[in-house]
Amino acid sequence: MNTFGRNFRVTTFGESHGTAIGVVIDGCPPGFDLSEPDIQAFLDKRRPGQSDLVTPRKEDDAVQILSGVFEGKTLGTPLCLLIQNTSMKSGDYDTIRTLFRPGHADRGYMQKYGIRDHRGGGRSSGRETAARVAAGAVARLYLEKERILILGTLLEVYGKTTPEGMEEAIRNARDEGESVGGVVQLSVTGCPPGLGDPVFGKLDACIAFAMMGIGGVKAVEIGSGLEAVKMTGTQHNDQMTPDGYLSNNAGGILGGISSGQEILVRLAVKPTPSVRTPQQTIDTRNCAQEISVQGRHDPCIAVRIVPVAEAMMALVLMDALLEQRKITPDCLQES
Amino acid sequence: MNTFGRNFRVTTFGESHGTAIGVVIDGCPPGFDLSEPDIQAFLDKRRPGQSDLVTPRKEDDAVQILSGVFEGKTLGTPLCLLIQNTSMKSGDYDTIRTLFRPGHADRGYMQKYGIRDHRGGGRSSGRETAARVAAGAVARLYLEKERILILGTLLEVYGKTTPEGMEEAIRNARDEGESVGGVVQLSVTGCPPGLGDPVFGKLDACIAFAMMGIGGVKAVEIGSGLEAVKMTGTQHNDQMTPDGYLSNNAGGILGGISSGQEILVRLAVKPTPSVRTPQQTIDTRNCAQEISVQGRHDPCIAVRIVPVAEAMMALVLMDALLEQRKITPDCLQES
Amino acid sequence: MNTFGRNFRVTTFGESHGTAIGVVIDGCPPGFDLSEPDIQAFLDKRRPGQSDLVTPRKEDDAVQILSGVFEGKTLGTPLCLLIQNTSMKSGDYDTIRTLFRPGHADRGYMQKYGIRDHRGGGRSSGRETAARVAAGAVARLYLEKERILILGTLLEVYGKTTPEGMEEAIRNARDEGESVGGVVQLSVTGCPPGLGDPVFGKLDACIAFAMMGIGGVKAVEIGSGLEAVKMTGTQHNDQMTPDGYLSNNAGGILGGISSGQEILVRLAVKPTPSVRTPQQTIDTRNCAQEISVQGRHDPCIAVRIVPVAEAMMALVLMDALLEQRKITPDCLQES
Amino acid sequence: MNTFGRNFRVTTFGESHGTAIGVVIDGCPPGFDLSEPDIQAFLDKRRPGQSDLVTPRKEDDAVQILSGVFEGKTLGTPLCLLIQNTSMKSGDYDTIRTLFRPGHADRGYMQKYGIRDHRGGGRSSGRETAARVAAGAVARLYLEKERILILGTLLEVYGKTTPEGMEEAIRNARDEGESVGGVVQLSVTGCPPGLGDPVFGKLDACIAFAMMGIGGVKAVEIGSGLEAVKMTGTQHNDQMTPDGYLSNNAGGILGGISSGQEILVRLAVKPTPSVRTPQQTIDTRNCAQEISVQGRHDPCIAVRIVPVAEAMMALVLMDALLEQRKITPDCLQES
Repeated sequence: MNTFGRNFRVTTFGESHGTAIGVVIDGCPPGFDLSEPDIQAFLDKRRPGQSDLVTPRKEDDAVQILSGVFEGKTLGTPLCLLIQNTSMKSGDYDTIRTLFRPGHADRGYMQKYGIRDHRGGGRSSGRETAARVAAGAVARLYLEKERILILGTLLEVYGKTTPEGMEEAIRNARDEGESVGGVVQLSVTGCPPGLGDPVFGKLDACIAFAMMGIGGVKAVEIGSGLEAVKMTGTQHNDQMTPDGYLSNNAGGILGGISSGQEILVRLAVKPTPSVRTPQQTIDTRNCAQEISVQGRHDPCIAVRIVPVAEAMMALVLMDALLEQRKITPDCLQES
Repeated sequence: MNTFGRNFRVTTFGESHGTAIGVVIDGCPPGFDLSEPDIQAFLDKRRPGQSDLVTPRKEDDAVQILSGVFEGKTLGTPLCLLIQNTSMKSGDYDTIRTLFRPGHADRGYMQKYGIRDHRGGGRSSGRETAARVAAGAVARLYLEKERILILGTLLEVYGKTTPEGMEEAIRNARDEGESVGGVVQLSVTGCPPGLGDPVFGKLDACIAFAMMGIGGVKAVEIGSGLEAVKMTGTQHNDQMTPDGYLSNNAGGILGGISSGQEILVRLAVKPTPSVRTPQQTIDTRNCAQEISVQGRHDPCIAVRIVPVAEAMMALVLMDALLEQRKITPDCLQES
Repeated sequence: MNTFGRNFRVTTFGESHGTAIGVVIDGCPPGFDLSEPDIQAFLDKRRPGQSDLVTPRKEDDAVQILSGVFEGKTLGTPLCLLIQNTSMKSGDYDTIRTLFRPGHADRGYMQKYGIRDHRGGGRSSGRETAARVAAGAVARLYLEKERILILGTLLEVYGKTTPEGMEEAIRNARDEGESVGGVVQLSVTGCPPGLGDPVFGKLDACIAFAMMGIGGVKAVEIGSGLEAVKMTGTQHNDQMTPDGYLSNNAGGILGGISSGQEILVRLAVKPTPSVRTPQQTIDTRNCAQEISVQGRHDPCIAVRIVPVAEAMMALVLMDALLEQRKITPDCLQES
Repeated sequence: MNTFGRNFRVTTFGESHGTAIGVVIDGCPPGFDLSEPDIQAFLDKRRPGQSDLVTPRKEDDAVQILSGVFEGKTLGTPLCLLIQNTSMKSGDYDTIRTLFRPGHADRGYMQKYGIRDHRGGGRSSGRETAARVAAGAVARLYLEKERILILGTLLEVYGKTTPEGMEEAIRNARDEGESVGGVVQLSVTGCPPGLGDPVFGKLDACIAFAMMGIGGVKAVEIGSGLEAVKMTGTQHNDQMTPDGYLSNNAGGILGGISSGQEILVRLAVKPTPSVRTPQQTIDTRNCAQEISVQGRHDPCIAVRIVPVAEAMMALVLMDALLEQRKITPDCLQES
């Protein structure tokens, strides 16, 4: 199941150390302006090596549009966006060919498929998310025309909530060959009311599906989230007046349908599993081994997840927007 | 989108005050024992009126198998499970025909569809979950044959974590016409490794989708959940030995694939939005109104969500189990 | 896979001698007028016993709307349409409990599922098509508002193409305990251009899928159909003028997209497999047996297939219509 | 809808004169041997320019595996197969930028999307089928391991049924700048019983869907096909003995489920619409024009469709094979 969405259908492919990664988008509306630089701008934000808070690995991530665009406009036919894998050093990974890294998908892939590409995580690598960002870029460009804006921010790292505290926590982790977790927040403004498809395609359910499908995410909260547990109904309800809502505990989604308020989502991201500290593990023959993961890893993947989470949110909203169009003439006629 | 699952496809239908609610299950394996009492046992756990902690409303919820079973065994053809709506007092709802209740889906349905059945929430009523419980019962009976067991428990209510504290909080809320939030935990034992379908059909993503699709759920955590944010990689990683894992921060799912460990999930549930306390709202003409919701409502829907969450977990696992069978001969051959 | 369609999703359930058959429609647009008599009118056309050319079996086929309609209008929520099975005489079928009838699905169901409901064909019975007709009725009522009209006619029976010849062939077959094949034609007028979804969801491909999925259909032709084989390109091409096309060999669909011309489809239907003539067969233990199928069977199922084919065409067009709405604002803006 | 299949999901992309065409296969079983030359062998059979009966256009069609294979074996992750577009002369098509060619999808794409790539048919070009052949090659290699063999043959051209007659008809058409229609037959041997998914996913319905989705196909027949219309039930039924069936009018599929007999399918293919003969048409402003299509076109696309039809059959069977695995343990246990 490498396809996301029912209307704006995004299928990613590619292993981190294979020939290329990429994405096919089926169901993209025709006739809107799209170019490689438009998409590249979003990929550049995800690209590593841009600050000392992220991995210094070099990845060019140059996107190429193979299909679906003609003379600068989308055709309504499938877009294929391709990113060649360059600067890959597969030899680096020979030592983990038969070792399962703790906190990684290594053993899971072997248990599921009976085979895996061990190099850099293969399909389970964070590199796969570049394809999501490329697809998300197309969706965001479309959504922006509809004045729907998505903004992700890093809220917390290892218990710290100020920029200085967060940066210090990340640098400390990096210097010690360690890693730390964090919280990412997403805000969407301009989302029209009526998006989301009860009962199983609720907008918040689709967001949770999208966000929990990002590697490393351990919790998803909408609006009040966990705080709701300590509230009474009267406190939690967002009362309505002719001028709008008096609060936003719903996080912009009620009954699985967007209300027109700001959509608010938070993700808890686990610390990067690749750490230098020696850990107990097993190999493919189930023998005890010790492992110390070397290499240039992100000390806090929450940082890198921000643009990925924005992209996934764009895919959810784009899909919901197209879904709603099917019934728009009918619901307008009646309301 | 009233269908859940790709292999064990569950489609629910019905409004709370219509003729009936029910569910069609397509893709149910043939040849296993199934009877109405088998399913009824699960519905009875969800039924209201069984203690003073839940609504005293009477709902019989008697399930009828309309198709898909012959001489006590499933046929492999679609099961239709029907629950007639009885004891419904639609007249009770005339006062909210043109009012939008705060914290409810009333206004969302109107914004989305341009029309709504206002009686008891219509399609957005918690009553729809009876159909989910019926479908989940079929899945659970099948999973139990495979020794996969699902257990839901109420962990916390309004900040209290002892049975006495939780019960007191609920009774207090009830007596004041108020409501309180809570936390539900799910545990799955016996789940084989290898379930879950990267990259977009990760098992934890499917669980988050299923759980956030239950009305009132505001957060979903897997394993360490929000705690992961305050941990280092070395602390969070579940180290492996030939005898098993040394911890379970992953919550039984790593890289989106079940590991064979216990699956652990927590849901944060908001307080019931129906409260007696007067609140500001608007009517369908956008005029200011005050509302005080009368009637016999659950003071803490978290209590009622336990069997629903168990049912949704069963649907997720059943679907993943059938999915994995497609490749099982190939992955076994290689591993 | 008991669901048809991606936008107007129709899931049928029920065995011919179970409690009931029915259908759930998910994705039905909200706000249009729908009542039980509206649907019943279409079911009555499919019902047996209305002339001496069809089986004299009595089936009431009274439809009940269980959900999705409120005060006479669709809600946008799933419709469940139920038809109770009455007048069923299951005992009639005891003799074929262990026998596989030639030309029937009996053995196929056993080979696929390892179990079957032998009574009246169970799930493979033509009775299942009543649920399709009910769903098709909803689609047709909607399409008629858009001025899209569907008409099925019986073109040929056992080589005869005049009403007298066809009726005589059917009566002869009936009197001899035999059966005969026939050709059904469908015509659609008023279909707007632009429906159909290349490359795999071509409108003609969807029609072929729908029609070949009706039991007994052995061939589907669009427009020129088999005649195309004997034509040159110049003969076959439908030339265009500012006033319209000069011919309609395409049958109203070109490149998988409706052209605005009349859609023309023909189905070849095999003779009813239930015949009194003794035939060789085997039983469930693979032993040789002779069978002579008794009972009141249709001597020519092509007659009965006309309303079913109309219904399936309605489902295809309804689905394509909703699909096209997703991109309509974009394609209009550009053209 | 550029995706085919529910389990072995094939998504093609690419316009004939864009950068590349290709296909992503999701759901391919892990652990079987696959290399570029394996796939190339099938593409070479589709490639033009191999005899004087087909277009002399040069297309290299060199396939590249971008993902999903590691050390010569499939990973279970998505395969991306890419074919660069080379030797394309887009300038050739400037004269049809504003003209709609009769018998082509030109006008349909404009009516549907409001925009089109006019060069060589763009997405509607037969070139897209190279991606299908590449995907079909993967399926066929897998099916061959299961001893399921697919063979397509050209049965008839312009009314001629001998090799000499067919070749002469094609050469005559070519020399006159004309084109002719034909019939393609598919035979499948070794298909196990039990494949196909009633009621809407019948194996014959899926085959009809696949075949009618190939550009130019106007009719699909299974087994007796149109001949069934002139038969009685006794003639048409395939009687059974302990040693097998006495005939195969069903064409290997009964009740939508494979019977284990040879699967027999026939396709009627229209004449290539590109002819030199001047024809009436219109331009994008709805003005009358005359057109004479120049260039090196296939005089009989039925010839070229043979490998495409084989590929589509492979996709259908592969999908059905994986589908059946979901219930195999259960149906075996009971039968």
